[in-house]
Amino acid sequence: MKSSVLDSPSLDRLAVHTITTKPWSLAVAADRFAAAGVSGISIWVEAIAGMSNSEVRNTVQASGLKVPALVRGGFFCDPDAQERVRRIDNNRRLIELAGEISAEMLVLVVGATPRAPLDIQRDWVRDAIENLIDDAKAANVRLAIEPLHPMYSGDKSCVNRLTQAREMCEAIQDPMVGVAVDVYHVWWDEALESEIKRLGELDALFAFHLCDWRVPTRDMLNDRALMGDGCIDIRGIRKLVEANGFRGWNEVEIFSEEHWARDQQAFLDDIVDRYKDC
Amino acid sequence: MKSSVLDSPSLDRLAVHTITTKPWSLAVAADRFAAAGVSGISIWVEAIAGMSNSEVRNTVQASGLKVPALVRGGFFCDPDAQERVRRIDNNRRLIELAGEISAEMLVLVVGATPRAPLDIQRDWVRDAIENLIDDAKAANVRLAIEPLHPMYSGDKSCVNRLTQAREMCEAIQDPMVGVAVDVYHVWWDEALESEIKRLGELDALFAFHLCDWRVPTRDMLNDRALMGDGCIDIRGIRKLVEANGFRGWNEVEIFSEEHWARDQQAFLDDIVDRYKDC
Repeated sequence: MKSSVLDSPSLDRLAVHTITTKPWSLAVAADRFAAAGVSGISIWVEAIAGMSNSEVRNTVQASGLKVPALVRGGFFCDPDAQERVRRIDNNRRLIELAGEISAEMLVLVVGATPRAPLDIQRDWVRDAIENLIDDAKAANVRLAIEPLHPMYSGDKSCVNRLTQAREMCEAIQDPMVGVAVDVYHVWWDEALESEIKRLGELDALFAFHLCDWRVPTRDMLNDRALMGDGCIDIRGIRKLVEANGFRGWNEVEIFSEEHWARDQQAFLDDIVDRYKDC
Repeated sequence: MKSSVLDSPSLDRLAVHTITTKPWSLAVAADRFAAAGVSGISIWVEAIAGMSNSEVRNTVQASGLKVPALVRGGFFCDPDAQERVRRIDNNRRLIELAGEISAEMLVLVVGATPRAPLDIQRDWVRDAIENLIDDAKAANVRLAIEPLHPMYSGDKSCVNRLTQAREMCEAIQDPMVGVAVDVYHVWWDEALESEIKRLGELDALFAFHLCDWRVPTRDMLNDRALMGDGCIDIRGIRKLVEANGFRGWNEVEIFSEEHWARDQQAFLDDIVDRYKDC
């Protein structure tokens, strides 16, 4: 028997988002992720509420984990112009925070409001991101625009397809700005293959997020499935991003009331097993 | 004061789907719709379960209402080829039924399965529709492909954008086959304007369905809003379809646990008022 048959697939590029094991504190999550062989931890702002930056840094360094991303900045869209300025300023603070905890990027969920046309909102988003590029450079933190599924067009994101995110990158034209591809949000899109190709050509494939689409989906927010339990061709999309030059993290980001109610160590073990399969 | 200020906007093109007032029987719905000045009733298969075709026809004729559509045919997608044949046969029966109750068209929700790639499923759908054209001609019932929102890609429809529906019409190229534009499913799409223009050029704008997108949406199926209570620019989309030649029915199709729990006559009165506003 060749040893390669016995070798586990590498977990060098596997990261897990803190929200995935929401019941765990950052310290517990970092400890357990590292023990399970996971290599990275993407940190949600909610997971570090009340902690100082040095506490966050020390906790992560002690675990030996890397930090692919701070999650989530953005939310730029509001009909009130002064409120939009406040939101950009809030993102400046998040970029600084990301730099201080050595996160490679800030993920941008760009926001949406029911009180303005989507195309006008996308202009606000582009302006906001352009306003943040100097901060991103100073902190050495990249900005990843994450298109969200069109079911979030009304209140969470006016960028709902890779096409729109790619066009925004082309308009901004800065190496600090790229795209987070989350299979949950984009799997249904007939432009998936062509857009990943174009994003690869732009060097704008910054992040790759994994979970699955449950059938039926019982809740619009918190019913994501473990990889393999849904209808997304995760392996195919992973091959696609890699064929187009992506060498970054594979980040598992699952919001699920069902999984949060389980024993989180058993859930984490499942995540690692399923990751090896896809 | 000019009399035109007092005139109500015309209800000549207003139709309501039986599912909108689900608690009412067909007889009650037809009676109340007519009394409220509504001109058409689109009939869901579920609303006539157990009735003979002549009962349905007599009930509708007594009310004086027209029948824009029988709703819903389709559901063509299954991994098993024999099952797909059965589903096509079922649609033959629905076309015949539509003809017998003088419905102008059969609305096709084309179906989806989590167990096949979406592009292959769209080929199944095109084949199925091509198989039904002779039946449609014999019954004088048009077939309206209704793209559903991408949140239904996993289990209800592999046609999720007007673009895909329009491409299917172009591939089939038959005047019996066109598209139902439901604002709920397509409002978020940046191709909305260009696709409605192209559908107009193809004479393929068969139906226009109205409701609104609630923010937040609490349920993926049954939380549609009354026109004006959500974030869709209904008036804008209505102008768009009319500018591109649409002269058909404006069909109100609202699935809502909240509204079904209300007094249905009060709900119907609200529908008529809101229709006049949009």
